[in-house]
Amino acid sequence: MAKQRKLRLGAVIHGVGSSVSAWRHPDIQSDASINIGFYRQQAVKAEEGKFDFAFIADGLYINEHSIPHFLNRFEPITLLSSLAAVTSNLGLVGTLSTSYSEPFNVSRQFASLDHISGGRAGWNVVTSPGVGTAANFNKGGHPEHASRYEIAEEYLEVAKGLWDSWEDDAFVRDKESGVFFDPEKLHRLDHKGTHFSVQGPLNIARSKQGQPIVFQAGSSEAGRNLAAKTADAVFTGHETIEEAQAFYADVKQRAAAYGRSPDSILIFPGIGPIIGATLEEAELKYEETANLGSIEDALRYLGRFFDHHDFTQYPLDEPFPDLGELGSNGFKSTTDRIKQKAKEHTLTLRQVALRSTTPRSSFIGTAEKVADEIQRWFETGAADGFIVGSGVPNGFEDFVDQVVPILQARGLFRVEYEHDTLRGNLGLPFPINRYAKQTVTSN
Amino acid sequence: MAKQRKLRLGAVIHGVGSSVSAWRHPDIQSDASINIGFYRQQAVKAEEGKFDFAFIADGLYINEHSIPHFLNRFEPITLLSSLAAVTSNLGLVGTLSTSYSEPFNVSRQFASLDHISGGRAGWNVVTSPGVGTAANFNKGGHPEHASRYEIAEEYLEVAKGLWDSWEDDAFVRDKESGVFFDPEKLHRLDHKGTHFSVQGPLNIARSKQGQPIVFQAGSSEAGRNLAAKTADAVFTGHETIEEAQAFYADVKQRAAAYGRSPDSILIFPGIGPIIGATLEEAELKYEETANLGSIEDALRYLGRFFDHHDFTQYPLDEPFPDLGELGSNGFKSTTDRIKQKAKEHTLTLRQVALRSTTPRSSFIGTAEKVADEIQRWFETGAADGFIVGSGVPNGFEDFVDQVVPILQARGLFRVEYEHDTLRGNLGLPFPINRYAKQTVTSN
Ligand SMILES: Cc1cc2nc3c(=O)[nH]c(=O)nc-3n(C[C@H](O)[C@H](O)[C@H](O)COP(=O)(O)O)c2cc1C
Ligand SMILES: Cc1cc2nc3c(=O)[nH]c(=O)nc-3n(C[C@H](O)[C@H](O)[C@H](O)COP(=O)(O)O)c2cc1C
Repeated sequence: MAKQRKLRLGAVIHGVGSSVSAWRHPDIQSDASINIGFYRQQAVKAEEGKFDFAFIADGLYINEHSIPHFLNRFEPITLLSSLAAVTSNLGLVGTLSTSYSEPFNVSRQFASLDHISGGRAGWNVVTSPGVGTAANFNKGGHPEHASRYEIAEEYLEVAKGLWDSWEDDAFVRDKESGVFFDPEKLHRLDHKGTHFSVQGPLNIARSKQGQPIVFQAGSSEAGRNLAAKTADAVFTGHETIEEAQAFYADVKQRAAAYGRSPDSILIFPGIGPIIGATLEEAELKYEETANLGSIEDALRYLGRFFDHHDFTQYPLDEPFPDLGELGSNGFKSTTDRIKQKAKEHTLTLRQVALRSTTPRSSFIGTAEKVADEIQRWFETGAADGFIVGSGVPNGFEDFVDQVVPILQARGLFRVEYEHDTLRGNLGLPFPINRYAKQTVTSN
Repeated sequence: MAKQRKLRLGAVIHGVGSSVSAWRHPDIQSDASINIGFYRQQAVKAEEGKFDFAFIADGLYINEHSIPHFLNRFEPITLLSSLAAVTSNLGLVGTLSTSYSEPFNVSRQFASLDHISGGRAGWNVVTSPGVGTAANFNKGGHPEHASRYEIAEEYLEVAKGLWDSWEDDAFVRDKESGVFFDPEKLHRLDHKGTHFSVQGPLNIARSKQGQPIVFQAGSSEAGRNLAAKTADAVFTGHETIEEAQAFYADVKQRAAAYGRSPDSILIFPGIGPIIGATLEEAELKYEETANLGSIEDALRYLGRFFDHHDFTQYPLDEPFPDLGELGSNGFKSTTDRIKQKAKEHTLTLRQVALRSTTPRSSFIGTAEKVADEIQRWFETGAADGFIVGSGVPNGFEDFVDQVVPILQARGLFRVEYEHDTLRGNLGLPFPINRYAKQTVTSN
């Protein structure tokens, strides 16, 4: 029985937003990044819209030039654990870096969130692009790009191993005989690798969904390989459908090369839809937001991707400067793309900076038009789903109220949750415990 | 105006309990340690009883001999963050070890919990007594007792420094002028010490209570000194009021020697009250629980404090064996006390083992009698408050329903919360930001 392929949706909840000056808009709560009421309300709205999950991004380094949202925000694990208590079907996905933490602690926290939420946890595995991060930790320096991904791969191996410490039926809890657990179903990992040495077992059982869902957000060669090899889902960002299709095909092929079914890895481009009653109204909303910031702010924001490079030293209305290798040890794929676009379209520094602070995608217009665009990407091999951010104030609410019903009417998106686990809703296979003797088919 | 000294109460929520076999009791939910419904219900009950806080203990190492509660339980930070959403005045205190984590991540998670809960977070700082812990982390070995406390002290210095990264009025958020924060009120820590090197700033503001409350639970010389120097409150455990008085006086004196007011550090002995309509009924409840386990289980439990020493090799009904220095690098003060008691009362191995699995305190009897005992400890310099566990099934509920009203009627304990922060309810002074130019008096 062939199941109809269904669109998946995640909600990026991002406080005052990812731009330098969105917080200045009259309709934005300027303390949203540290306002638990705001996050609760957004999570409840996402669940009302039958979203698969909410996503909380993260970073471990700031300085006085960081964008407002980064300066003062919740830490994802604590935030998601709190949101678990006010939602019941929504997946809870958070970023955590493998470059500056201990696999025992982190796999345990995700497992605990997974139990607290009844099987709704997801982990966006990143390697920390910011070079400054090392200064906040007791490391000699920021590991190189390749080394960060090597560490990430071993880290995930350890985490997944620890998650399988207990077989699903290990806890017997028979009061009569006094047997609390079956020792045959407890497994020590005894991992000894290049970067980590972790014995186990983990002091927490597997959850209802087996293991938390693993997301990956790197777009470089190394990032794609890690995703193709180990991730359940991938976050990505593209300006055009052609780019998205190429990325989609590439990652699915890599997954197949690792012996995986291409359906077992889901691709989620990020979009920031802007919806208006007419195209003109939507355009007006975009301009209102883009004009909130100064060009100085935009330059500073751009600099963040290039190791906090000072762009004020260049003329604004001349072609984007040649930066050589700058930025390639941090946000490699992002900076590569910026450089390439600038060259391709002979953009000025001003144009590059404004595009980077207030991205303008093709997901702008009437609800009908945005739904069309989503359907087009979904049906032409550009996406399995989307993570939906808020391009403008109330952009997310507009999406839930106006676009979701259209997608539902077209039979593309669910009207009710199919499951109460994230894995179940995403339609991903249940990971059988590596030590289990018999084959289990369930979810 | 002299304020009347008020008793403080914390609730230990501990799943299936700290004994080997309590889970076998018919009235115990045998999956309580990993049942979020159980924890929510206990937290709500504690808030109904106007408790200052709930406390979640923790550990980072298990093996097949660990007690049931340790094998499969929630991680404290995630659990407390979730409980924040279903409570509104209850403090949320969790254990986290300074021996196997990064100060940037940990101080950030506690700060985030502090914001999520509106100023109700507390951190029980421990150094991980279990020697096995090192195997789960990428450390050469378990640091020695003295070294662990040295690390803990520097760790706390870093955490408190990071918590002050932003002055209380740093976030201006003026939409008109576009000023999001005042750069003069952002401070980099630039800590470079023996064990840690952390630049900062932290990417989260101070909370309503300034900083999370710091608890300390070590009882050795080093533990007492750390508490006296840096902690707001101390967890301790004593079998007799005389021991408790001696400890209380000692820690308050040490605090004074560090130039602190003795009132600025609160001492909380842990108790597991057992309440019955009559003394006989209470005694019966104790015996019912003590008899649930086998002597083998009791020996194994005892072994845990002595680096998992195998006690089955000794005769049960002869005097407790001479163990030399065994156990002194882990639970030092606990093992010292066990050895001393055994010698003093010439106890057999069997007696020592049973006392250790099912402690028998003087907080047993009618509600009136237990209230008397609490009042006696509180008024004769043995305690500023108590952390109340559950000696028997429903022991905590009985305490809230029967003992709390008596303490309230006597004017010893609050009838309503005075504040919505943990610091406010504990009556502890607001910590002025180290960088603040002016003196702030508020809470
Ligand atoms: C949708 C999306 C979300 C991302 N979220 C985070 C995040 O929360 N934290 C982070 O450090 N990086 C995040 N990244 C960045 C990636 O982790 C990665 O650093 C970046 O895509 C550069 O790729 P590379 O590291 O493979 O060169 C995100 C990227 C995308 C596309
Ligand atoms: C009430 C109380 C609660 C404690 N909670 C914990 C805990 O959650 N985790 C832990 O590792 N140790 C805990 N301890 C143990 C102490 O951290 C400490 O290891 C022990 O008291 C031995 O003291 P010492 O380390 O100073 O020798 C607790 C102790 C007491 C008295």
